[in-house]
Amino acid sequence: MLVEVDPAPHRYPDARSVRLGARSGRLTGHTAGLAPGFVQCNLVVLSERQAADFLRFCQRNPKPCPLIAVTEPGDPTVPDAGEGIDVRTDLPRFRVWQDGKLVDEPTDILRWWRDDLVAFLIGCSFTFEEALAVEGVGVRHLEGGGNVPMYRTTIPCRPAGPFAGPMVVSMRPMGAADAIRAIQITSRYPAVHGAPVHIGDPAAIGIADLARPDYGDPVEVRSGDIPVFWACGVTPQAVIAAANPSFAITHAPGSMLVTDVRNSRLAVP
Amino acid sequence: MLVEVDPAPHRYPDARSVRLGARSGRLTGHTAGLAPGFVQCNLVVLSERQAADFLRFCQRNPKPCPLIAVTEPGDPTVPDAGEGIDVRTDLPRFRVWQDGKLVDEPTDILRWWRDDLVAFLIGCSFTFEEALAVEGVGVRHLEGGGNVPMYRTTIPCRPAGPFAGPMVVSMRPMGAADAIRAIQITSRYPAVHGAPVHIGDPAAIGIADLARPDYGDPVEVRSGDIPVFWACGVTPQAVIAAANPSFAITHAPGSMLVTDVRNSRLAVP
Repeated sequence: MLVEVDPAPHRYPDARSVRLGARSGRLTGHTAGLAPGFVQCNLVVLSERQAADFLRFCQRNPKPCPLIAVTEPGDPTVPDAGEGIDVRTDLPRFRVWQDGKLVDEPTDILRWWRDDLVAFLIGCSFTFEEALAVEGVGVRHLEGGGNVPMYRTTIPCRPAGPFAGPMVVSMRPMGAADAIRAIQITSRYPAVHGAPVHIGDPAAIGIADLARPDYGDPVEVRSGDIPVFWACGVTPQAVIAAANPSFAITHAPGSMLVTDVRNSRLAVP
Repeated sequence: MLVEVDPAPHRYPDARSVRLGARSGRLTGHTAGLAPGFVQCNLVVLSERQAADFLRFCQRNPKPCPLIAVTEPGDPTVPDAGEGIDVRTDLPRFRVWQDGKLVDEPTDILRWWRDDLVAFLIGCSFTFEEALAVEGVGVRHLEGGGNVPMYRTTIPCRPAGPFAGPMVVSMRPMGAADAIRAIQITSRYPAVHGAPVHIGDPAAIGIADLARPDYGDPVEVRSGDIPVFWACGVTPQAVIAAANPSFAITHAPGSMLVTDVRNSRLAVP
């Protein structure tokens, strides 16, 4: 994954300032740690024809693909997620895919936009990691400064049209008491992956070696730790890559759309 | 534990009929499975002088000692738990202790009652086991017809006066998905032990061998199972036995007080 130096968080205290920074071209790197307390989203853009299949895929697989918002075809605004959002300019960096190949990594997609495109905003684990931190549940990869380790599993997603494939999970090792608390806390956030999909034995979901993640960085698993696995937003990216649509746009890894929705507003009682 | 034949559950469809059966002397055995849907309670009776310490003990250890109700000194009624309850007669069988020795196992405690006695009704796992069953989470010891296995741990209770000692836990083995769901479900029932206190490695809480429980019956742990441990209502009984009060009364194992409180009413959102 692309890792860049923190772009002066004090300049980006709220969601709007992050979006304006991205829109102006000043902010081109990661959004982790910016606008604390606000929901950050993965972006997927597809043609209207493929969007219908993908929407069904998300509906059938809400744990890896929790939808925060979907745009009207051709309309780059998302009033439900924040006033004045323009998904074409308000992320620091994008990836443009044609026939499964990465063809561009622009800082805006104005020249790629078409009036048949639909944008999907998909919740991400930053929200529940903040909730865990608030409650004192340590998340080890954050302490180490790395990316969360992610793994392809043998858990199948429910297919829709051309979209199919295995679930990708992220893993956070923790002691038993923290694992129980983490299940409670993340259960309150169904809109950002929700409760874990698995705890314990990695082999039970087809993971051969925790030290060799398929994405992200390995993290130390200590004696007494229980590996806790959450459905991961990389799942839709992998599924889209496998479906090989003629055209797609996604966020660049770590460069998310920061919304005006507060993390705490996603909590159910 | 005392195990008796099921006393014709159809004769005891509701809580009041169970209590009247016990009061009349017809019902002298277990209450498991009777009056489905209603909260059953452990009973502890102490003198007013020791009750103050024990009440503080319960307040400090709500997971093993969740209080449903406490009576006024000398008053055997518990209006909060059900109309017309008389704790002296409405349990099928009691145990009377003097200086730590079991001196009587009567079917009522009318002749032992004193006007300085205080009764504690303590929530029990029957309530959350019903909630697990409703959601299709299998509880193995119920399938096998045995009692849940229980273990003394190295988890200390917070002491109060003479009451102190280790937490006793019950253990239910389940697959990872059921373990996650069971944590969610039981978290909604803080009044009946709530979320597990531990998952995974038994040795981490001082349990040497799952096959040799300190109370109850061993239960099969299958490949892929995670042992899930809940604080257990045997804890206060063990703590009281260790404190060796000059006088105490408890329910006989499995012969609970059935209240008019619905299990579902104990659920938090």
